Amino acid sequence: MRPDLSPQPSGCQQRTVMRHRGLVPARVTDHVAEEVPVALVFNGISHAVMMATPRDLEALAVGFALTEGIVPDQSDIHDVAVHQLPAAAEVQLTIGQGAFMQLKQRRRALSGRTGCGICGIESLALLDLEPAPMPPAPLPAPLAPALARAARGLGQHQVLMRATGGVHAAAWCGLDGTVQAVFEDVGRHNGLDKLIGHLVMQGADLRAGFVFLSSRASYELVRKAARVGIPMLATISAPTSLAIDIAGQAGLKLVSFCRADGFVDYTNSADIVSAAP
Amino acid sequence: MRPDLSPQPSGCQQRTVMRHRGLVPARVTDHVAEEVPVALVFNGISHAVMMATPRDLEALAVGFALTEGIVPDQSDIHDVAVHQLPAAAEVQLTIGQGAFMQLKQRRRALSGRTGCGICGIESLALLDLEPAPMPPAPLPAPLAPALARAARGLGQHQVLMRATGGVHAAAWCGLDGTVQAVFEDVGRHNGLDKLIGHLVMQGADLRAGFVFLSSRASYELVRKAARVGIPMLATISAPTSLAIDIAGQAGLKLVSFCRADGFVDYTNSADIVSAAP
Repeated sequence: MRPDLSPQPSGCQQRTVMRHRGLVPARVTDHVAEEVPVALVFNGISHAVMMATPRDLEALAVGFALTEGIVPDQSDIHDVAVHQLPAAAEVQLTIGQGAFMQLKQRRRALSGRTGCGICGIESLALLDLEPAPMPPAPLPAPLAPALARAARGLGQHQVLMRATGGVHAAAWCGLDGTVQAVFEDVGRHNGLDKLIGHLVMQGADLRAGFVFLSSRASYELVRKAARVGIPMLATISAPTSLAIDIAGQAGLKLVSFCRADGFVDYTNSADIVSAAP
Repeated sequence: MRPDLSPQPSGCQQRTVMRHRGLVPARVTDHVAEEVPVALVFNGISHAVMMATPRDLEALAVGFALTEGIVPDQSDIHDVAVHQLPAAAEVQLTIGQGAFMQLKQRRRALSGRTGCGICGIESLALLDLEPAPMPPAPLPAPLAPALARAARGLGQHQVLMRATGGVHAAAWCGLDGTVQAVFEDVGRHNGLDKLIGHLVMQGADLRAGFVFLSSRASYELVRKAARVGIPMLATISAPTSLAIDIAGQAGLKLVSFCRADGFVDYTNSADIVSAAP
């Protein structure tokens, strides 16, 4: 855990706003989550700009490089330097020559094209919809008390969420559901990347616990988790159809609507009726 | 409004899942929101892939082309054809030669680079952080009852949300807060693009009402709305710092935490304390 006891946690700003509730509008001080453009630069070449909350940016960059398959392994990341700019940030990564050559080739193959929506993808042919199955890993057993503990624990560590009401959280939990690390961001993908980057930098075993997210489960979140071998993803809100299917293919356990009083297990839940026209 | 009275609304799938709530786990049928890759193809060139809910895709494509500045005006969109593929979709747009030449030049300038996070942006220099101020437009007056009506109205039209618990909604409201159109999607940007595309195709006056979103307010949502001249954005959840700043620069009124019993006005709420270190 990274306790943040300052009155204004890093990653938020104070604003004077007009609150209209009750009979008389009131001018009050409000905390809002910071959102700034963060450029990720690999070996001097700017590769991507994320809108992110400017804290834990080294972890964000390391996590992104791994979950997007830019480097196959942490050992290919030789250096990470965070530069705070006025109202923006830049993270300079130095990666191994092999990974950099692959990145350059991938970018050359996309010559003159821009990606959108999905990271660097501009045509259906480039989508990664068939993840390799992961080796089996231990899961929480029994599952229900571990998820209940994680659901109760997450809220206690959502510092930025309490201040702003406007960020997502990604937590790493031990097999008994104990919350061990929490990262918050205006973007749920960034929160997960920060968490994964942090764990990898700590040398944690990504197969000895599970990820608990305050958000829904989408294709991209499942794919990011599967790419680094995380065996289970638990989310507070709903999963999408593709999140379920990709989790099934990868052998990642997916549980959603996780609350203190229960959860829904979406593992291997095939489409039983074709989609309505 | 587009009433959907079918037992399974378009855009969701049925799955058999294990629900763990109460003493005994139960195998039940669940509805999950569909998420499929949707490729947007301009004059034969694949430009972007979004993960989206496969309904209202013509509106999505028209809205995206306008809110991302690919075409300056609806009259530059000559044809839109939606092709449903197995577990994916492709939307072919035919746009005017002038807009297409500009798109090609923009893509050539990004030669060998891929965008990520923000649509087609791979370096800070390419970010559009200084929107032009919009001409003034009428706003709801009084504001509070209009927002209360919109907040109550939105929930009644969230067909997919009721079925799946996992989608966002974008609504168009008249100046009195009456909900006039609602579009749902797994992605909040897509929901807004579908709404804007629909309104433009209907010939609606985008300055004679406001947008109400079930989500938070981020930079990209504000920028999309400002680009097509929508005078006010209301959201159920929190805004980010950059959403507030961009709205202020564009002259777009931003109100958040909009519920039946009140709202918070973030218009012109400058940062009063520099961000914590």
